[in-house]
Amino acid sequence: MKIYLYGVREDEKGYIKEWEKEHKDIDIDFTHKIFDNKTADLAEGSDGVVLLQTQAYPKTALKKLQDFGISKISVRNVGLDGFDFKDLRDLGFSLTNVPVYSPNAIAEHTIGLTLRLLRRVPEFDQKFADGDFRWFPTIGEEINGKTVGIIGTGHIGSVVARIMMAMGANVVAYDIKPNPYLENLGIYVDSIEDVLKQSDIITLHTPLAKKDLHMIDKLAFSKMKDGVIFINAARGGLVDTDALIAALDSGKVGGAGLDVLESENDVFQKKFDTINDVKDPQFKALINRKNVIITPHTAFYTTTAVHNMVFDSLNDNLKMLQSKAPKYPVDINVE
Amino acid sequence: MKIYLYGVREDEKGYIKEWEKEHKDIDIDFTHKIFDNKTADLAEGSDGVVLLQTQAYPKTALKKLQDFGISKISVRNVGLDGFDFKDLRDLGFSLTNVPVYSPNAIAEHTIGLTLRLLRRVPEFDQKFADGDFRWFPTIGEEINGKTVGIIGTGHIGSVVARIMMAMGANVVAYDIKPNPYLENLGIYVDSIEDVLKQSDIITLHTPLAKKDLHMIDKLAFSKMKDGVIFINAARGGLVDTDALIAALDSGKVGGAGLDVLESENDVFQKKFDTINDVKDPQFKALINRKNVIITPHTAFYTTTAVHNMVFDSLNDNLKMLQSKAPKYPVDINVE
Ligand SMILES: NC(=O)c1ccc[n+]([C@@H]2O[C@H](COP(=O)([O-])OP(=O)(O)OC[C@H]3O[C@@H](n4cnc5c(N)ncnc54)[C@H](O)[C@@H]3O)[C@@H](O)[C@H]2O)c1
Ligand SMILES: NC(=O)c1ccc[n+]([C@@H]2O[C@H](COP(=O)([O-])OP(=O)(O)OC[C@H]3O[C@@H](n4cnc5c(N)ncnc54)[C@H](O)[C@@H]3O)[C@@H](O)[C@H]2O)c1
Repeated sequence: MKIYLYGVREDEKGYIKEWEKEHKDIDIDFTHKIFDNKTADLAEGSDGVVLLQTQAYPKTALKKLQDFGISKISVRNVGLDGFDFKDLRDLGFSLTNVPVYSPNAIAEHTIGLTLRLLRRVPEFDQKFADGDFRWFPTIGEEINGKTVGIIGTGHIGSVVARIMMAMGANVVAYDIKPNPYLENLGIYVDSIEDVLKQSDIITLHTPLAKKDLHMIDKLAFSKMKDGVIFINAARGGLVDTDALIAALDSGKVGGAGLDVLESENDVFQKKFDTINDVKDPQFKALINRKNVIITPHTAFYTTTAVHNMVFDSLNDNLKMLQSKAPKYPVDINVE
Repeated sequence: MKIYLYGVREDEKGYIKEWEKEHKDIDIDFTHKIFDNKTADLAEGSDGVVLLQTQAYPKTALKKLQDFGISKISVRNVGLDGFDFKDLRDLGFSLTNVPVYSPNAIAEHTIGLTLRLLRRVPEFDQKFADGDFRWFPTIGEEINGKTVGIIGTGHIGSVVARIMMAMGANVVAYDIKPNPYLENLGIYVDSIEDVLKQSDIITLHTPLAKKDLHMIDKLAFSKMKDGVIFINAARGGLVDTDALIAALDSGKVGGAGLDVLESENDVFQKKFDTINDVKDPQFKALINRKNVIITPHTAFYTTTAVHNMVFDSLNDNLKMLQSKAPKYPVDINVE
């Protein structure tokens, strides 16, 4: 049996080799190229394919897979926006994804961003580089004793809640579907508004449903405490970035940690000659502030997460090939 | 009644004013000068003094306090090295200190240093400044699933243990006096050596007893796992810095987070014209490594800690003046 992987990054190769060693009876081959009409032929002779890309999966390319007798597709990430499920049904495909690869990766990054802002690391870094090793006036704050507001307590938000509580924070949370375990801890409040009003630190962990575009807008910022620390490692579109910039200008927001940005596709994963070559106006308005830390969508980027994305997708592809139940089947009978 | 404070830093003044407001019947006065033979006269007319300095407290200056009828001394920190207890007994003083002002401040800084090393923040910061927003090859690691070794589980180490466990770490600890609560969690191993051998991340939280000078020496580093992350926010003298530098050179230590250094008195709390004016050879051998993060003994430096140092010392000084039992009496009948 043979599985073919598309869109393989350099850092995934070691895990693919590792999986291959544990499955000596399975042939593995891969390309760094993404899956499209030009590259579909590479899968000829394979039984299953494993994909990862932000670009759409064209029906004409999927048709080629069908011609090669391939009917099992696994993606190494969560996102399924690139598929038209009707195409998959018409062509008789089965699909799996990896909905959870490492909630801790994003939760730990959230804690790291919060601590860097509270302890004024950008300012201390600058002082250090300048040969100034005095504390004053760069005094920090602790998570201990602060009220931390968490919007969305799914896989990631619930880990953030657990760590923040261990640090001594008073956690208040809102979720449209409260988690019974956290409910017993009494952390839920009745609305996003309650979270916004009560919290010293606010962190977002919901998906970006269409109705939640700009969930955090000008009005939402106006409800927050003065000097609030604001973290977004979920989705850029949850936040009206211009409203955030205004809230930073006014001092309403005392610090922002952003792993995602509305306009990140124009910047993140790219290499510019210098940082001044980045033209995105929101990005330019956010950098060069000592109370803003931007990371280029790296919250998930750990060896554990990449290992799990490779292993879970290959395991599920193999399960389907062996007519066994995969761990993460995707129901393609929905629109 | 009047209390006089010496060695007051700018960031302490707000908390002194706050305490004053809550104690309108007590007079407060202070100086930024430290307590010595020249400044002792400033306390004339006061009933108690509150001190903070690294320099010794001279008997001749203490004698002046006695002449003014002052017999209650409170220090705003832990350290009592500056006192000769025999002097205090001879002159009839009572003494308090602040042995615990905020274990969380140091524990959270320890977590922050660990996360910055695991997530390769210095490298990402450099890439960001250069306009490079690509992930690869700067992949990070998680605390989740790692074995974290904690040497010393007192006020600070026990908080580090709690947070690390909430993050999903497997905590192994050693303490000459195990804490019964943590013992029930089964985290203790039999020796420092066991901690050194088993841990992916090692963090020190013991005082610097004379016998513990260079507790972590060349031999200790040789027992650690290759690529270990090593954190010291306790005391610089616990570590043989030359051995640490050699372990960084060889790759034995994969990352070091240092809030304290053996030679820190020559560097920290000072302002140099440029960082190149720092002449300390150990310091020079440690900076400019992407896997070393040095902070200038700022782990404790939070608003909570400074608040507690000011409030607890003033509260205890007042208690003694009112012939009530202070919270943190120091037994000066020991050598
Ligand atoms: N920065 C990164 O590298 C990275 C990596 C992975 C995931 N993410 C993002 O993190 C977010 C959370 O991921 P997850 O795995 O925890 O998802 P999840 O589905 O496990 O949890 C999301 C939670 O949000 C709740 N929710 C949905 N809409 C809500 C609303 N309007 N108000 C309040 N709660 C709402 C859901 O009920 C659910 O409990 C997603 O946006 C995801 O895209 C970011
Ligand atoms: N970086 C900073 O800003 C900062 C601030 C405050 C304290 N500190 C330092 O942090 C350290 C811990 O402080 P704490 O308040 O937790 O002290 P603590 O007295 O509460 O705890 C120290 C623990 O270490 C144990 N211990 C002593 N010698 C040991 C040994 N040889 N091996 C194993 N365990 C040993 C003790 O039994 C105790 O449980 C001290 O070195 C202190 O000076 C640093």
